[in-house]
Amino acid sequence: MASESGKLWGGRFVGAVDPIMEKFNSSIAYDRHLWEVDVQGSKAYSRGLEKAGLLTKAEMDQILHGLDKVAEEWAQGTFKLSPNDEDIHTANERRLKELIGETAGKLHTGRSRNDQVVTDLRLWMRQNCSKLSALLWELIRTMVDRAEAERDVLFPGYTHLQRAQPIRWSHWILSHAVALTRDSERLLEVQKRVNVLPLGSGAIAGNPLGVDRELLQAELNFGAITLNSMDATSERDFVAEFLFWASLCMTHLSRMAEDLILYGTKEFSFVQLSDAYSTGSSLMPQKKNPDSLELIRSKAGRVFGREDKEAVFEVSDTMSAVLQVATGVISTLQIHRENMARALSPDMLATDLAYYLVRKGMPFRQAHEASGKAVFMAETKGVALNQLSLKELQTISPLFSGDVSHVWDYGHSVEQYAALGGTARASVDWQIGQVRALLRAQQA
Amino acid sequence: MASESGKLWGGRFVGAVDPIMEKFNSSIAYDRHLWEVDVQGSKAYSRGLEKAGLLTKAEMDQILHGLDKVAEEWAQGTFKLSPNDEDIHTANERRLKELIGETAGKLHTGRSRNDQVVTDLRLWMRQNCSKLSALLWELIRTMVDRAEAERDVLFPGYTHLQRAQPIRWSHWILSHAVALTRDSERLLEVQKRVNVLPLGSGAIAGNPLGVDRELLQAELNFGAITLNSMDATSERDFVAEFLFWASLCMTHLSRMAEDLILYGTKEFSFVQLSDAYSTGSSLMPQKKNPDSLELIRSKAGRVFGREDKEAVFEVSDTMSAVLQVATGVISTLQIHRENMARALSPDMLATDLAYYLVRKGMPFRQAHEASGKAVFMAETKGVALNQLSLKELQTISPLFSGDVSHVWDYGHSVEQYAALGGTARASVDWQIGQVRALLRAQQA
Amino acid sequence: MASESGKLWGGRFVGAVDPIMEKFNSSIAYDRHLWEVDVQGSKAYSRGLEKAGLLTKAEMDQILHGLDKVAEEWAQGTFKLSPNDEDIHTANERRLKELIGETAGKLHTGRSRNDQVVTDLRLWMRQNCSKLSALLWELIRTMVDRAEAERDVLFPGYTHLQRAQPIRWSHWILSHAVALTRDSERLLEVQKRVNVLPLGSGAIAGNPLGVDRELLQAELNFGAITLNSMDATSERDFVAEFLFWASLCMTHLSRMAEDLILYGTKEFSFVQLSDAYSTGSSLMPQKKNPDSLELIRSKAGRVFGREDKEAVFEVSDTMSAVLQVATGVISTLQIHRENMARALSPDMLATDLAYYLVRKGMPFRQAHEASGKAVFMAETKGVALNQLSLKELQTISPLFSGDVSHVWDYGHSVEQYAALGGTARASVDWQIGQVRALLRAQQA
Amino acid sequence: MASESGKLWGGRFVGAVDPIMEKFNSSIAYDRHLWEVDVQGSKAYSRGLEKAGLLTKAEMDQILHGLDKVAEEWAQGTFKLSPNDEDIHTANERRLKELIGETAGKLHTGRSRNDQVVTDLRLWMRQNCSKLSALLWELIRTMVDRAEAERDVLFPGYTHLQRAQPIRWSHWILSHAVALTRDSERLLEVQKRVNVLPLGSGAIAGNPLGVDRELLQAELNFGAITLNSMDATSERDFVAEFLFWASLCMTHLSRMAEDLILYGTKEFSFVQLSDAYSTGSSLMPQKKNPDSLELIRSKAGRVFGREDKEAVFEVSDTMSAVLQVATGVISTLQIHRENMARALSPDMLATDLAYYLVRKGMPFRQAHEASGKAVFMAETKGVALNQLSLKELQTISPLFSGDVSHVWDYGHSVEQYAALGGTARASVDWQIGQVRALLRAQQA
Repeated sequence: MASESGKLWGGRFVGAVDPIMEKFNSSIAYDRHLWEVDVQGSKAYSRGLEKAGLLTKAEMDQILHGLDKVAEEWAQGTFKLSPNDEDIHTANERRLKELIGETAGKLHTGRSRNDQVVTDLRLWMRQNCSKLSALLWELIRTMVDRAEAERDVLFPGYTHLQRAQPIRWSHWILSHAVALTRDSERLLEVQKRVNVLPLGSGAIAGNPLGVDRELLQAELNFGAITLNSMDATSERDFVAEFLFWASLCMTHLSRMAEDLILYGTKEFSFVQLSDAYSTGSSLMPQKKNPDSLELIRSKAGRVFGREDKEAVFEVSDTMSAVLQVATGVISTLQIHRENMARALSPDMLATDLAYYLVRKGMPFRQAHEASGKAVFMAETKGVALNQLSLKELQTISPLFSGDVSHVWDYGHSVEQYAALGGTARASVDWQIGQVRALLRAQQA
Repeated sequence: MASESGKLWGGRFVGAVDPIMEKFNSSIAYDRHLWEVDVQGSKAYSRGLEKAGLLTKAEMDQILHGLDKVAEEWAQGTFKLSPNDEDIHTANERRLKELIGETAGKLHTGRSRNDQVVTDLRLWMRQNCSKLSALLWELIRTMVDRAEAERDVLFPGYTHLQRAQPIRWSHWILSHAVALTRDSERLLEVQKRVNVLPLGSGAIAGNPLGVDRELLQAELNFGAITLNSMDATSERDFVAEFLFWASLCMTHLSRMAEDLILYGTKEFSFVQLSDAYSTGSSLMPQKKNPDSLELIRSKAGRVFGREDKEAVFEVSDTMSAVLQVATGVISTLQIHRENMARALSPDMLATDLAYYLVRKGMPFRQAHEASGKAVFMAETKGVALNQLSLKELQTISPLFSGDVSHVWDYGHSVEQYAALGGTARASVDWQIGQVRALLRAQQA
Repeated sequence: MASESGKLWGGRFVGAVDPIMEKFNSSIAYDRHLWEVDVQGSKAYSRGLEKAGLLTKAEMDQILHGLDKVAEEWAQGTFKLSPNDEDIHTANERRLKELIGETAGKLHTGRSRNDQVVTDLRLWMRQNCSKLSALLWELIRTMVDRAEAERDVLFPGYTHLQRAQPIRWSHWILSHAVALTRDSERLLEVQKRVNVLPLGSGAIAGNPLGVDRELLQAELNFGAITLNSMDATSERDFVAEFLFWASLCMTHLSRMAEDLILYGTKEFSFVQLSDAYSTGSSLMPQKKNPDSLELIRSKAGRVFGREDKEAVFEVSDTMSAVLQVATGVISTLQIHRENMARALSPDMLATDLAYYLVRKGMPFRQAHEASGKAVFMAETKGVALNQLSLKELQTISPLFSGDVSHVWDYGHSVEQYAALGGTARASVDWQIGQVRALLRAQQA
Repeated sequence: MASESGKLWGGRFVGAVDPIMEKFNSSIAYDRHLWEVDVQGSKAYSRGLEKAGLLTKAEMDQILHGLDKVAEEWAQGTFKLSPNDEDIHTANERRLKELIGETAGKLHTGRSRNDQVVTDLRLWMRQNCSKLSALLWELIRTMVDRAEAERDVLFPGYTHLQRAQPIRWSHWILSHAVALTRDSERLLEVQKRVNVLPLGSGAIAGNPLGVDRELLQAELNFGAITLNSMDATSERDFVAEFLFWASLCMTHLSRMAEDLILYGTKEFSFVQLSDAYSTGSSLMPQKKNPDSLELIRSKAGRVFGREDKEAVFEVSDTMSAVLQVATGVISTLQIHRENMARALSPDMLATDLAYYLVRKGMPFRQAHEASGKAVFMAETKGVALNQLSLKELQTISPLFSGDVSHVWDYGHSVEQYAALGGTARASVDWQIGQVRALLRAQQA
């Protein structure tokens, strides 16, 4: 009889259970992460039962004491799983019964397994979201510090992987840091919706024994109480939200990693990864591969599209590792300023050449066309754009005059972009200030 | 030469473009949705150019007037696309030039195509999120009204599709309404992040011509300004967030639809769809299929995993239709109270039987086992659970006495679930009040 | 120095590696599944090296002997992982070196890690696909046997969850079995593409030491050799194909499970799951939940959209369990013939009523309309469709006469569907024969 | 009454249908692609009805003639959709009735809408898969021709985006061509499963009117007949398979595009896209973006994870365009041989240096370590690897002698990789021959 094996639903079954089915149904392999919050939730619930008169004070104390003992065993690594412990909740209650006897059987009064599972999961995720928030802040802070320190380094900005316009290296760092501040903001919103108490919802109809849910809320320090017992035990929106959060954050980290992989190739040679974040090849002795960056990129794929409880544990671990590795990479990365400077070329100032004509009164569409013709002329002649003579330029437009030579200055070029959000030094400083203010606000 | 075809990047190309490639690259088929916001964005930008001294007052007026004319043509359906109009922005600027001449060429000064695309998209989505919010509120309100009106109808609550406990019909409605309030809250958060001005970011480095982005913000009524020009033009987090929002909302509507499809089968017969939301079969004359509900369910699949700009338009349309159909379904649905009542059976009170023993002092685990034995005894004897004699019950536990007969009352059963969120009448009333308060708060 | 830690790429690194990064990069947790095929691949490669003159016969024998010892340790559970064993390949080679000394260092000559990883994975998957094929055949065979045994049981066929037409219970079983035969066919195609030797491709350029790849193919019994060394080490099409195969197969099993969950509800009561495949509720004593079926359904979600090597191991395990549980469920399922018969109702013969008129010469579209009117008339009068009087039917069409009474016979109805693939007995027998023939052909 | 609007299921409905619901349910916008195969299927079915005695010869001729007229109207663009034509099947039958009167109502006898939908879809996909096969062969052929012509060009092979070993440019082309041959093989398998006749399956139970399905198969030239009528009308495995095929093929094209984007950057400068496959920037006059390649890459995202019938049409169009654009890109691409040669550097021969020691008898693991030390020594001294003196090398290993100078020859290096699948000239020729043989075999 199944009841003899001590399964929670005992009593009724007369057939044996297919062992493959049992293994299939077991979640203990991954939900052991929940041991601590499971004890925490049960302690709060036993206080609720006592207030409702379903436990005497003495019984409650016995249960609280027993649960502390269970927690101690987990903490010390001495808790022994039995083969019938199909999940963490069964395991803890089985152990409690061994420790304190029949009174343990009163703990589940009016509580359903779904009730307990979702409460534990919310407690665990609340804790973990806080940890991830802190790691994310650390990464953003590292990036902003670096952006501040290296504000004067210019290098090519790319669109479509083609050199586009000269920008500050800090501008590139901040473009990624700003994206991460949105992740940070979203994580706080996820936490708000994680931090809602479901306990006291029973199987479906609610709790019939007068348990005071506001007491449970206070005990477990939740921000709010679920409104409907059916919804409370079945909804996993907060899991989906967390996984979506992780996907989006990984997308951002993955894009940054992709840029850095490229900037670290022999052909670009803008940056060099620390050895601590590189690996070699088992075959080719000269290789130094950017494995940290590639792992960040590939982990992104593993975060997308997961939907289950197991995913929460795995994705949390991944995010925690990725955020720390990314922080390490950014803080140890070496940059090659001279290569960056060397990569700036006069054709990247073709837009400035068009603006030169705009400032002389030519409509932009015509100026764009005229500058395009200059680029084509230079290519055809096999010279750099800034080596076209004034005479040659004047065959394209009579508006060109001697002052066109002022265009060919990268430092001057970037300083033009002074509108909010641009790559001028003042604007980069403004960005640094804004991101720092955001971090302070979120931490408050 | 490509420049003769009037393409925006003119001037440089000497080869012709593969026509398949051109078609491949064209987005006009779907981004015509953007005509109105494109005009709106360009009007604001021309004011910015005037303030920066890049347009005279007269030129600005000429452009504003021309753009109004373009908008008028779209509104009246007289705008004629030309084969070279690869996207809505090219089309509008091409038409503006036809209407006002060369001055049109000044409008794009310092603005990039990416700048314009993302500004238009944000303007359009802001508008559309507001519409979807209103439709969602309408649906929730309809559900809450119905829940209030039919509070006294009891029917079986199911878990694992097996009859579990008696609940109120309103409790079921509210379980879905409460899920939708979370979608409503999330949509407001998405809107907040949609409502940020990117215009003035140029291609990558920012705007070099002194355009006042705070003026643009005020003109277009945005809540904030993007912080970094590289991030501003490339990030589409708000699109991903909107699509995720739609996925989650569709999951909720899909689950509700799934329940209703089941409740509407011959075998359940709890509800009947209005003919306005059913269709027949081309082969079987007696069929009346719940097509509205099946479409809601199947559209869910089409919303998941989309990632592009096209998806925004399609998913918005889908959500708009689905929310309206769902509102129609709920407001016209007929319920069969007598079938609902008939579906309640004594075995659904087995949990109450266990609680009876708990109230007599038996630990819940033992009480659960005892009640399970009673269920098994009734099944074996082929009688209903409430037809076991007192004597028979007492063979299971001596704690059973005459007052056990009070257990067999469905109305009494649901009234026990009075803890917050439960199915007792007072708790259902509390839920109705809470959801109504949420709606009022969100609309404010 | 990192080389001191014995890492394979040794020699060059001067920085230490971030420990989070190391853990992040480690795959030993899941690729220990590969121990056996890793040894198998290395044995074959050492024979290749010997033939190419890079190992003496004595060295080869030493390596082969050492590898057998490594395999023995794994088989007996005595293999001890060291903290630096980041993957199974490192672990086995480290152990080999401990066992036979420096000669172990010759084994990797001309072989890259990618070479080895992909060879091992293909060997493992080839083995596992065979096992899954056998389990799938077993399931199909069980279904066909049951379909043959219960050919005479009629029950309602549903479309849109509405009762549509009477069909044979075997017809339903076969609809699912036929879907699984396609999975079986596809799995053989996947195996064909798994069964291709990549070994001898080196890092990217190929093998420069004259290793005879046809010898390796023969040693490892592969069906073909990869054509291009760059493609060989990087492509994972066969993994994607396997995962897609699993998704599609799970979709089929999931649909079958969904039908059975429904048929097992109180409301349908057509089938009853064996206790061996059911579980109870920790709260509600009367509950018996179809957990095996729900797990099959939920595992489907976990199979979709996985893309990595880890997924192969997990998905293989899932498929293996699911196929066995499904076989168990089908072979122990109890059916309630009387409930099935009772669920057949005259309105399900409305199509037959239309065909009656068609046979009297009325175009089908009119006959469909006429039969629809009869259904509406019966509903309005509150009687069953077969209780309309001849006179009443004749108000709809004068073509109705006394022989219309022959329509109301479910057995006669199903026997009409004698075209290939239909639900008539002869056609069901034909299907059984076809599926059996397919199984025989695939096993050959 | 809904029946007045001419809907196919007429007769029964008394409520009006919500117009949003109607629009929602309509598929005519995308299934008009099916007009031709719908007529084709109906013509075959009317022959089946005639053989079964349900149509006279004269009625059949009338229907065949009418259907030809319908097809003619579609072909000439004169077919007028009416607002009630919710799908292509309704539209064609409505028009047929207008053309030939009541006899049209006999065409649907014993056929269900599902029957018709799935038959049409299979016919359309069969045709389209053939077209895509031809386009794919054309692309592979172009690649192989190019690989043959440019066999003598060497350039760096990359792993992890780091320079790894010298390879032939043709070896890179073939690595992508070989991947595409797998897609080509898979497409033939998909076609085999598409090419199965479902017609004659009715709604669910089969066809009750003696229609000869083997006649239908012959008329429509299908390779096989579906085995079970329930499965036949509901299964869409072939759609999922086609979409998966497209995903995998797009992954391959996307990877090739990604390589080419990189090779075309200023920093790599190995290749240059034809102007026909590039576009400019609306802001930056010098830009020439690889839009064709980026579109190939981004379209990959739009192909993944689609699941519906609409997806089939869209994905087919995408694949058709992408294959043609890819063929165009490859056939017009310009390569810069001198840049390719210049990018080869002595450190890429570090593996060869290790093999040098292996050939002198050192175990590979030690040789790898020794070569790594040489790389480190050269880096530390700031010289190229081939500029270390023999004396310096001998401090690492006494096995180095004068003949080490032979290692520093890229042409000699690639010729070593002569094992099947390697980058030696003979092996590349072998690959070209193998791929050509595959193409010939598949076309047969």
